[in-house]
Amino acid sequence: MPGQQLATTDSLVEGTHFLSSLSSYEDIGWKSVAVNLSDIAAMGGYPEHLLIAISMPPRFTREQFTRLYTGIVDCANTYKTRIVGGDLTSAPQLILGLTVLGSFHENGCLKRSGARPGDIVIATGDFGASAAGFWYLQNESSEAHSIRPRYVRTSAAHRRPIPRLAEAWSLVKRTDSRGALMDSSDGLADALCQISWASEVLIEVDLELVPIHDETREVATLAGVDVNDWALYGGEDYQLVGCVRPEIWDNYSHELSSSFVVIGRVLEGRGVRLKVGSADGPEVELSRTFQQIRF
Amino acid sequence: MPGQQLATTDSLVEGTHFLSSLSSYEDIGWKSVAVNLSDIAAMGGYPEHLLIAISMPPRFTREQFTRLYTGIVDCANTYKTRIVGGDLTSAPQLILGLTVLGSFHENGCLKRSGARPGDIVIATGDFGASAAGFWYLQNESSEAHSIRPRYVRTSAAHRRPIPRLAEAWSLVKRTDSRGALMDSSDGLADALCQISWASEVLIEVDLELVPIHDETREVATLAGVDVNDWALYGGEDYQLVGCVRPEIWDNYSHELSSSFVVIGRVLEGRGVRLKVGSADGPEVELSRTFQQIRF
Repeated sequence: MPGQQLATTDSLVEGTHFLSSLSSYEDIGWKSVAVNLSDIAAMGGYPEHLLIAISMPPRFTREQFTRLYTGIVDCANTYKTRIVGGDLTSAPQLILGLTVLGSFHENGCLKRSGARPGDIVIATGDFGASAAGFWYLQNESSEAHSIRPRYVRTSAAHRRPIPRLAEAWSLVKRTDSRGALMDSSDGLADALCQISWASEVLIEVDLELVPIHDETREVATLAGVDVNDWALYGGEDYQLVGCVRPEIWDNYSHELSSSFVVIGRVLEGRGVRLKVGSADGPEVELSRTFQQIRF
Repeated sequence: MPGQQLATTDSLVEGTHFLSSLSSYEDIGWKSVAVNLSDIAAMGGYPEHLLIAISMPPRFTREQFTRLYTGIVDCANTYKTRIVGGDLTSAPQLILGLTVLGSFHENGCLKRSGARPGDIVIATGDFGASAAGFWYLQNESSEAHSIRPRYVRTSAAHRRPIPRLAEAWSLVKRTDSRGALMDSSDGLADALCQISWASEVLIEVDLELVPIHDETREVATLAGVDVNDWALYGGEDYQLVGCVRPEIWDNYSHELSSSFVVIGRVLEGRGVRLKVGSADGPEVELSRTFQQIRF
């Protein structure tokens, strides 16, 4: 699609999307860029330019601003995205409104509408980690988490998410625009439902194949939460969920399996079906919004 | 500059940039688009695409949202700008973060750095009107201004500003990238200081030539305010301030003078000098931030 462009905008509001008591301003700056880059990754594109609108409360100090901006520049530089403009205003709380402009991968673009019956469902990374980190940071004593959090992986997943750009490029390179892709910023369940809806297909996912890290399980036990609730509905994981033809996986699993795992398949029909346990185990229709899954 | 692009972002925060008690949600929606289009006009460009990030408080109703969005669509349609994406989140107050993508005029682009000694300074429309409207709407009884405000022109200047796109195009068409242009969103004094700083020139403006509407003068008298304070520092007028070679004005004043008036000239030096009254009348060095000008 030469001449065409990708553009994405995402706002982070203090109190809604982050708590400055749980993250450093460097982390908040990083995250504000990363969540926008994740939207570019979700289409397999390249980020190029960044616009930053910052609304600050009167109490915000120069030092806090410098730390925030350091995090923004750090993430932008890491992913070769050039800051080209912005806007500064005042507001009752800190608000970061970022816009990323990017270009399509030379092999095309993967949209959420591209899933077809017969595809397999693949996903990056581990799910529920950000929700676990958020719970842990809120519930541990401030001294413990500010100096050296015990649950480093999940804390980092919440504070400093990684946009899955390279993983997306490796997939687009092998699929030539055939397939679907989305990021799981609003949760795995939401991503699956969105792809199912946009592609008009039934997606069947095996819960036991969904990657969940041991640390996430450990924090869930501490919290008395079913870890699957976090994995499906926790959100803010910024992982990729894709649907591709099985031949892609057969031919390139040696390169793709370093980033992706197979978690299900695409069928004729509508909706998202979650399989639990053995082949003839229980199944449940998955919705976008939180539902308790118990068998 | 083929292949190059314009991108601008501006956030409007409830309480900081607008009060929903003084403007309808349709007006707020309109204004959020118009202020971004004004930034495109400030470079003489064409707006093409619009991204909208809306953060809403929990109390925001569906009807209020519909009215807000109607105003957004209205302004976008009026200026042929296509809404291509956005983001919806929650926040303690209404925040509108808009991004406009556009393209350069085929005759180039006017930046604030393009003023040269010998240029004349020209400006559109009237100054201080938005500040006057804001004062009037805040100080009149709510019944009076909601049904049929007495000061219609200044009220509209505050509620529903007009991006000066066509005026900017008429100028770029005749200047071929030679000259400076900026919008007066942060006040006429700020615009003049920014051009002076970026172009490394001295700008001399004759206060008596600055267009101020009779209605603005009338409201200023009511308010007990020096109307020049509003004209220079009121801001939110979204008028254009430009510096062009005198031949441009000599040759095309028949078409440009329907939009622009001459308010001063560009000299060797630095800063902004305001002349008051006759040729040998008093002069004052103008700063970006508010200063009382009394002689």
